[in-house]
Amino acid sequence: MILTVTLNTALDLTYRVPALTPHTSHRVTEVTERPGGKGVNVARVLAALGHAVTVTGFAGGDTGRALRERLATEPRLTDALVPVAGATRRTLAVVDAATGDTTQLNEPGPTVTPAEWAAFLDSYEQLARHEGTTAIALCGSLPPGVPVGAYALLIRAARAARVPVLLDTSGEPLRRGVAARPDIVKPNADELAELTGSHEPERATRDARRRGAHAVVASLGADGLLALTPDGGWRARPPKRVRGNPTGAGDSAVAGLLSGLAEGLPWPERLARAVALSAATVAAPVAGEFDPTTYEDLLARVAVTDAVPAST
Amino acid sequence: MILTVTLNTALDLTYRVPALTPHTSHRVTEVTERPGGKGVNVARVLAALGHAVTVTGFAGGDTGRALRERLATEPRLTDALVPVAGATRRTLAVVDAATGDTTQLNEPGPTVTPAEWAAFLDSYEQLARHEGTTAIALCGSLPPGVPVGAYALLIRAARAARVPVLLDTSGEPLRRGVAARPDIVKPNADELAELTGSHEPERATRDARRRGAHAVVASLGADGLLALTPDGGWRARPPKRVRGNPTGAGDSAVAGLLSGLAEGLPWPERLARAVALSAATVAAPVAGEFDPTTYEDLLARVAVTDAVPAST
Repeated sequence: MILTVTLNTALDLTYRVPALTPHTSHRVTEVTERPGGKGVNVARVLAALGHAVTVTGFAGGDTGRALRERLATEPRLTDALVPVAGATRRTLAVVDAATGDTTQLNEPGPTVTPAEWAAFLDSYEQLARHEGTTAIALCGSLPPGVPVGAYALLIRAARAARVPVLLDTSGEPLRRGVAARPDIVKPNADELAELTGSHEPERATRDARRRGAHAVVASLGADGLLALTPDGGWRARPPKRVRGNPTGAGDSAVAGLLSGLAEGLPWPERLARAVALSAATVAAPVAGEFDPTTYEDLLARVAVTDAVPAST
Repeated sequence: MILTVTLNTALDLTYRVPALTPHTSHRVTEVTERPGGKGVNVARVLAALGHAVTVTGFAGGDTGRALRERLATEPRLTDALVPVAGATRRTLAVVDAATGDTTQLNEPGPTVTPAEWAAFLDSYEQLARHEGTTAIALCGSLPPGVPVGAYALLIRAARAARVPVLLDTSGEPLRRGVAARPDIVKPNADELAELTGSHEPERATRDARRRGAHAVVASLGADGLLALTPDGGWRARPPKRVRGNPTGAGDSAVAGLLSGLAEGLPWPERLARAVALSAATVAAPVAGEFDPTTYEDLLARVAVTDAVPAST
C-alpha cells in the first residue's frame, strides 16, 4: 500500500460559464465536483495504475463530508483522513467556454488545532509503521495552524519506519522538509529556484541534493524531468510537445515516480513512466485525469538520457 | 406564523479577493456562507422583525445539509424544507476588495423529480391549511423539473385555505401566477415590463392588476414603491437616496409588506415599512441584511402619497 498525505485537502469545483465578465452576473451551465488536494490527485492516479492507496490528511465540515463520500466510491482508495472541526476548503476553477481559459479561486482552508495535529501525527505514525506500507508521498501546502516544520517531522517518522518518502511542496515547508533528508523531492522550476536561489536547473538540482534530499527530480514543464539520484543522473523528455491543460501534470509525475519505486523499477523506467503520465495528463480533456491510451503510446517513446552535470 | 416558499433555495457563498483578474489564480482572503434563495432572505428579515416564520421549498445534498444546519441556528425560523436527491445549488458572489464590485456566479439547482414535487405539494397544502398560518410568500425562480405553472397551483391552494398570498417571481412563472389571482404581486420595473410590455410604471401596474393580481406593488429602485390595491393607490418614496449594495432590497420590501399584512396594518403603513426596510438593506455593510437603526430612522420619514392614475 502506498500512503499519500494531503494536509490541505480540497473539494475541487469546476464551473463552466459561457464567458467570464467581471462585475456581471453569470448562469453556470455545468458544475463538477471532485475530491482534491495534491496528495488526493496523486492517489487517484496511483489507483488508476492498479496500486492500493491510503489517503490521509484532514477533512471537516460539509465540504469534508462531500469529499469523503466521493472518495468512498473510488476503487483501490482507502480513506484514513483525520476529522477536523473546521470545514475543508473549496477550490473553484471557472472555465470560460468561449476561450477555454480558467480563472482559479482557492479558499485558504480550515485552521487545524494543536489537538487535531496531534491526532493526525498519531494516526500517521501507525500508518507509516504498518507492514504493508511501501512508500509515502507528502504533498501540497500546509493549512493554517499546522507548524511550518510539519513535513520535516513526517519525513523523520517515515525514515524511522524505514519507508521511502517523497516530498512535493514549496516555500518554507519545502526548505525545512529537505533538511530532514527525504528520499525524493519533486520541485518544479519555480520551487527549485525559490529553494536554491538558482534559475539554472542542473546547478539548482545539485544544490537541492546538498541541502539534504537523497534524490531530486525537477519537473521542467515541456522539457520533462531532470533527476539527480544516488544511482546516477538522468534527463527524461516527452517525445513531442503535448498541448492541453497542465493542471495535475506534476501530481501525475509524482504518481509515476512512486509507483515505479513501489514496483522496484530502476530509475530510468520510473522517470519514463513519470514523464509519460504527466504528458498524458496535459493531453486529457478533464483537468487532472490522464488518458490511458496516450500514456501507453508515450511511455515507449520517452527519451531518457544520462545527465552527469559538471561539479560546481 | 408566516410561511415563505423558496423552491430554488441556495447556499450563498461570498469570496473576498484582493482583485479579480480573469484567467489568473486567486487566493480567497475571506469566505462567508449563508442560507439563501429569495424566500429564505424574506424569512430572515421577517424573523428580525419579530415574526415566527416557517421556511419551505427543497433542500438536498451536502449543500442542502449545510443550509439546514445554518437555518437551525436562526431564532424564530422553522425549517419545513422537503428533501430532494439532488444537491441544493450554490450561488457565489466574488467581491473585488480593490473596487467593491461583485461578480456573481449562480449554479442552476438540482432537478426536482415528479415524486419530490408531489411530496412538496402535500406538505405545502398542510402548512397552508394550518390554523396558525397568517400569510404566504412565494419567492424566486423555479428549479429544473418543477412545472412552469407551479406558482398558480400554490396560489390556488392558498386561496382555498383563505390565507393571503404574495408572489415575487419573474418571466413565465409570474405570468401564470398572476392569472391565478394572488393577493399581492411585487414585480420590479424589469419584471413588470416583461409581464405587461409597458415600460411606463403606472400603466404597467394597472395592466398587471387587470391580469389577475388583487394588489400590485411595483418596486422602482431608488424611486421606492408604486402600489395599486383594492383599497387605493399610493407611491412610497425614501426620504433620501441611499448608497450601497441593492442585493436583497426587494426581499426586504416583501418582508415589510408581509409583516404589515400579518399585523393588520393599513396599506400606507405597510408601504412605508417596505420602503424603509428596503433602503436600510441597501445601506447595510453585509449584502441582504438591514441596519435596524437606519430602518427606524427612515421609517418615520418615508413619504406616502396618493396615486390615482388616470384610467387607460
